[in-house]
Amino acid sequence: MTNRTYTVVFQPSGLRGKVKDGATILEASIKLGAGIESVCGGKGTCGKCQVRIEEGYFAKYGISSSIASVKNTGEANQKFISKRQLKQGYRLSCQTRIYGDVVIFVPEKSRKGQQVIRKEITVRNIRLKPAVRKYPVELKPATLHDPIGDYERLQAELTRKYKLRNLSIDYPVLMKLQNTVRQSNWQVSVSVWNGKEIIDAAPNKTDKTYGLAVDIGTTTVAGYLCDLTNGDVLATASMMNPQVAYGEDVMSRIGYATKSKDGLKQMNRVIIKGLNEVAGEAASKAGIRRTEIIDMTVVGNTCMHHLFLNIDPQYLGKTPFSPSVHHSLDIKARDLGLRLAPGSYVHVLPIEAGFVGADNVGVLIAEEPYNQDEMLLIIDIGTNGELILGNRQKLLSTSCATGPAFEGAEIRHGMRAAPGAIEKVKIDPKTKEVQFRVIGSESWNTEVKNIGARGICGSGIFDVAAQMFLAGIIDKSGRFNMRIKSPRLRQSGKEQEFVIARAKETAINQDIVVCQRDIRAIQLAKGAMYSGAKMMMKRLDTKKIDRVILAGAFGSYIDKESAAVIGLFPDCAMENVIAVGNAAGDGACMALLDMRKRKKADIHAREVEYVELTVEPDFNTAFTKALNFPHAEDAFPHLKHLLPSN
Amino acid sequence: MTNRTYTVVFQPSGLRGKVKDGATILEASIKLGAGIESVCGGKGTCGKCQVRIEEGYFAKYGISSSIASVKNTGEANQKFISKRQLKQGYRLSCQTRIYGDVVIFVPEKSRKGQQVIRKEITVRNIRLKPAVRKYPVELKPATLHDPIGDYERLQAELTRKYKLRNLSIDYPVLMKLQNTVRQSNWQVSVSVWNGKEIIDAAPNKTDKTYGLAVDIGTTTVAGYLCDLTNGDVLATASMMNPQVAYGEDVMSRIGYATKSKDGLKQMNRVIIKGLNEVAGEAASKAGIRRTEIIDMTVVGNTCMHHLFLNIDPQYLGKTPFSPSVHHSLDIKARDLGLRLAPGSYVHVLPIEAGFVGADNVGVLIAEEPYNQDEMLLIIDIGTNGELILGNRQKLLSTSCATGPAFEGAEIRHGMRAAPGAIEKVKIDPKTKEVQFRVIGSESWNTEVKNIGARGICGSGIFDVAAQMFLAGIIDKSGRFNMRIKSPRLRQSGKEQEFVIARAKETAINQDIVVCQRDIRAIQLAKGAMYSGAKMMMKRLDTKKIDRVILAGAFGSYIDKESAAVIGLFPDCAMENVIAVGNAAGDGACMALLDMRKRKKADIHAREVEYVELTVEPDFNTAFTKALNFPHAEDAFPHLKHLLPSN
Repeated sequence: MTNRTYTVVFQPSGLRGKVKDGATILEASIKLGAGIESVCGGKGTCGKCQVRIEEGYFAKYGISSSIASVKNTGEANQKFISKRQLKQGYRLSCQTRIYGDVVIFVPEKSRKGQQVIRKEITVRNIRLKPAVRKYPVELKPATLHDPIGDYERLQAELTRKYKLRNLSIDYPVLMKLQNTVRQSNWQVSVSVWNGKEIIDAAPNKTDKTYGLAVDIGTTTVAGYLCDLTNGDVLATASMMNPQVAYGEDVMSRIGYATKSKDGLKQMNRVIIKGLNEVAGEAASKAGIRRTEIIDMTVVGNTCMHHLFLNIDPQYLGKTPFSPSVHHSLDIKARDLGLRLAPGSYVHVLPIEAGFVGADNVGVLIAEEPYNQDEMLLIIDIGTNGELILGNRQKLLSTSCATGPAFEGAEIRHGMRAAPGAIEKVKIDPKTKEVQFRVIGSESWNTEVKNIGARGICGSGIFDVAAQMFLAGIIDKSGRFNMRIKSPRLRQSGKEQEFVIARAKETAINQDIVVCQRDIRAIQLAKGAMYSGAKMMMKRLDTKKIDRVILAGAFGSYIDKESAAVIGLFPDCAMENVIAVGNAAGDGACMALLDMRKRKKADIHAREVEYVELTVEPDFNTAFTKALNFPHAEDAFPHLKHLLPSN
Repeated sequence: MTNRTYTVVFQPSGLRGKVKDGATILEASIKLGAGIESVCGGKGTCGKCQVRIEEGYFAKYGISSSIASVKNTGEANQKFISKRQLKQGYRLSCQTRIYGDVVIFVPEKSRKGQQVIRKEITVRNIRLKPAVRKYPVELKPATLHDPIGDYERLQAELTRKYKLRNLSIDYPVLMKLQNTVRQSNWQVSVSVWNGKEIIDAAPNKTDKTYGLAVDIGTTTVAGYLCDLTNGDVLATASMMNPQVAYGEDVMSRIGYATKSKDGLKQMNRVIIKGLNEVAGEAASKAGIRRTEIIDMTVVGNTCMHHLFLNIDPQYLGKTPFSPSVHHSLDIKARDLGLRLAPGSYVHVLPIEAGFVGADNVGVLIAEEPYNQDEMLLIIDIGTNGELILGNRQKLLSTSCATGPAFEGAEIRHGMRAAPGAIEKVKIDPKTKEVQFRVIGSESWNTEVKNIGARGICGSGIFDVAAQMFLAGIIDKSGRFNMRIKSPRLRQSGKEQEFVIARAKETAINQDIVVCQRDIRAIQLAKGAMYSGAKMMMKRLDTKKIDRVILAGAFGSYIDKESAAVIGLFPDCAMENVIAVGNAAGDGACMALLDMRKRKKADIHAREVEYVELTVEPDFNTAFTKALNFPHAEDAFPHLKHLLPSN
């Protein structure tokens, strides 16, 4: 061991820190709080602490990672990890030492305690009409007097028994048809896509069919494995979008694709690889093989959509921001590199305009504003914010660059929603004392000793801003009120800061604070959302909003009162502000289970009118006014009981 | 050099022989008469004598071949042959020495003199209605006020200008669409398949579109490159079917696929590779790139059809001989491994039944018996013989295993139609003296000195049998008449033989003879054809045939009087016996150029009624009677002037 130190980053949590030359990965995990499981305590006998060394240059961390940065100790690696997986970079944390900068992926099974999946979906009342149906048939064996081809024999029986006519057959299915039919003694199950094409023929074992709905977020990818015969969600799998290594947000990915040779190819490759992993993980949880997944739907914002399809996103990033295609697409999974059932199709939902992508269409078919009389505002909070306003008369949409502040980035002590993140904050208006709760613990900091806070995640940031404003620590304009006497409020160099967690309450041995710049970042993000909503209200000539729907996984975790207090959206009765979870994912599931939803998506994606905020003449004024908490001018009658009465 | 000798086989001619250890390939070619071009006379300075060493075990020659069996001399190989081609086994014949058994492919450009392409097609009156059409469009550039996606923009313009609606777009085309459109300044040519799908979008340079019609014969593969905008055949390319290495005829290939692990995969791989070469050669002759070929049609017998599609042919080889599929198929070229335009489809014509395949359907749409009043007999002579009988009332088809005798195999001095093959024979009825003509020479053996005959090919065999019968050297039953006095007729061991070419007239320094067993092989082959026709006549209850159409490349080369005299088909007026060349290939071209022909093929392939000869009760009797020259019982009023009057 030398005195050198190396940078270690754990994924998907994003935790990073320095470790000494020769430290084991498990030691690094303990030091940085990455939470790698270890039953045997580092003896190399339980095999629970498997991680994967990530290869490549990780622009976001400023480090290059490779398998060569680590060395194995002893033979336990060979014992628990297959040759193929060793090649892929899998190692036991306790038996592998660090001799260089390295990025380490911690698979879910190796993570301590429950993982925080922030992309759960809501199972709703879904009418079933999946794209793929399975039909059991029994064929009469061929004879010299009836030697017609197997495909024609199958077609005739499908017509006779199920009135299915003029089906085409996917070429790989045709290739194997004769052997399949004969090996299963002329009894086969035929999977038909969209009433048009035979995409699978298999021995007649089960009538179950499985599909995967996928929501490709800028930050998180989530897959929902559904039983297409009853609509059950059998398993959920999620991972950090591996493209994060090439840029945190949409614009930086577009930049990477444009500037870097093979940038598009790289980002496409990692997301396809990632989706294969998500599909594999979901299948494994549900106890099926990945190749039993026979249908798939995909939603994602326009940039994720393009990168998934290996389409150059450069034109999305420059005026007039036109996409390659709006229509929904049905593409063979194999043509995309996805390893599902060989004949399966992937249905990519349509996109609306600019950055209002297929994820927003997912929200649209999940929430059905086109069927409502109420004036609805749907806010999808992600790395990119998308808004829909309207009702059955007319629908508008827009997108605003909220930046990643809501996800904990660009905030001094911001972090992702991972164990150790402060997710709830209360500030006593009188004493200015702080209570907080971290992910991974069910109690507030006042109740237990060792909290181990590591930073503040998005929902915590909403609370911090709202509570600081309500406690008068910041004013309407976001400025710190330094006249307040509190040991937590202090000047640090040129910056003012407010202490949320004291060093002893943290796992990082330093105070976790919020500074003036953090408040500014929150103001910019919420101001963009608010002013977007206002511009649309003006277009629709409406003064009031009947209902606010907070979509996006994130929307479920934020405190809706905090969101209202900081002015994320115009005035609305609190009981009508509803968090619906990952509505984009819900929409993907609905489209997976019900062809009518795909049709609705095609129709309404075209009908929604896109508002390009940057060309609206009074947007800048509206934006400036919306920077205030909750707004410079607007009245909030429904928040009277909450807001300070100045 | 040692005293060892090695077996060398040249392809596609099939010439084989022994050469000494260390001989150059050019020396081997000169010794065996393979006819490799050499301008510089073996100095390694002209680069004309390039050949390719074939890798693999060649069951038909009983030898294993590899690049390791040869060694380069000097540096001329590097000078004339690229690294990539060297890897593929290309070498200069004169600079490469043989140190092991080896199979050598002589590419067309390295062959001396004109090649004998036996699969020419007839350009007929074709009405143009190709599957792929190119549409030039000019798009309005996207603006902030009209930022609709590029695909939707393109679709709108195609609807406005050409009334094309609801087109889908091939995924690889979509991938590149935005860059294509912008790099070509919003002017693109769009190729639309079948009025349904955009399969290409390219800068607006030419309105030409190209297609390839392919006839996959058991022995020969031929490709016809057509201009889809005017129907011109721009280039023809042909090669020996590389599957010949795995078996000469259909049954032996089925056997290989069934018995050998990966046999199907191997045979599929070589035919796909071969077709890519044929496409490349045709494209290069026409001065275009292979990727400009945007449509393709394929015909072939049922076994070739299955092997091309990578479908296990085992069930074709056993009762009830049912194929995998009869219907025509449209499959993406890329899914088959064909490297044409990325979005292009391959249209595989339908098959009829058993061994009456897509090639016969090609004949059907080329000859249109379904539009005729006359009673037509269409004979497609290949390694497998196929027959169609009928008219607009009804059509029957059958297939008979003629064996490869007509192609020169199973005949002692038989050989393929390659330079040196005796293709025409005349025998003086009185003197029994023989005149012959060999391929590669335009004169008869009496006129020039050095003939260099190497064997007898199919058309020569027809002449030999007919002329020997007419000269009384063999009788009606095929027996040699040893009472005839001629130095050419002799007993050799147990066998009788008749000398066609004397040793000094040959390039092999031995007499080229026809023996009793050869005559028997011809009788079996022609008897199968004749009795097949008779069984169908009986079914149709017809006594006479108005017209005989000799289809198949081979049909153009045989002497129709010889064919009539030996009894290849029942009596017919000689002026109504017509050779139409490679009608299967013609049909493939027609289907390439005219969608209506594809529809006709689909309809009539289903209507033709297949006669399974093996289950007909009196087939054996009919077959036995048909072994005689021309037949044991039937009268031939139209051949009165030709046949001996006994």
